[in-house]
Amino acid sequence: MNPTKRCAACKYLRRRCPKDCIFSPYFPPTDPDKFACVHRIYGAGNVSKMLQQIPVQARAEAVESLCFEAKCRVEDPVYGCVGIISLLQTQIQKTQSQIAQTQAEITIAQTQSSQFM
Amino acid sequence: MNPTKRCAACKYLRRRCPKDCIFSPYFPPTDPDKFACVHRIYGAGNVSKMLQQIPVQARAEAVESLCFEAKCRVEDPVYGCVGIISLLQTQIQKTQSQIAQTQAEITIAQTQSSQFM
Repeated sequence: MNPTKRCAACKYLRRRCPKDCIFSPYFPPTDPDKFACVHRIYGAGNVSKMLQQIPVQARAEAVESLCFEAKCRVEDPVYGCVGIISLLQTQIQKTQSQIAQTQAEITIAQTQSSQFM
Repeated sequence: MNPTKRCAACKYLRRRCPKDCIFSPYFPPTDPDKFACVHRIYGAGNVSKMLQQIPVQARAEAVESLCFEAKCRVEDPVYGCVGIISLLQTQIQKTQSQIAQTQAEITIAQTQSSQFM
């Protein structure tokens, strides 16, 4: 067992990396921060438990979304990625007002246009 | 110590609820699911650790966002609330195309209108 071949998770947890390691396909040793971040927010046990409950083919996407949420929570401990949802919702509301206004303008312009046609 | 006065977290963890319980202001005994959900995703220790690192006046909001993320993760184990972010981003892209189209239409209408003025 070559310790340099351990995945980032097993390296972080200072354990040997088993052949069927649940973390190793998603946490390469070249990116140690990725595991450190999810470990800090969820804990290794919870991440492992969550991955076990997900079909293998969906695990890579689950890891990406967990890492994204964990990174957001580290950067914004109060709102995490819910802060992004709020920002996007505000942006949608503004854009919807903009559409309503633009549609009102188009109605006026079309009315003016039809008066002369 | 009246056990019925324990907060939802201490009740869930089967422990006495201390006077300075970090969970009790945010997890009333009337809503046991709220704690069960964050406990399932983050674990009680991580939630407690995260709350301790946040100023008291921001903790209620942090609990709400953690509960929201946990609920999303329980409902959608692969994407969690990142799925909502993707949906909102798609909605914004659609709306932006709609605006561009509407703005093109208004330009046409205004041009037609100005030809007759």
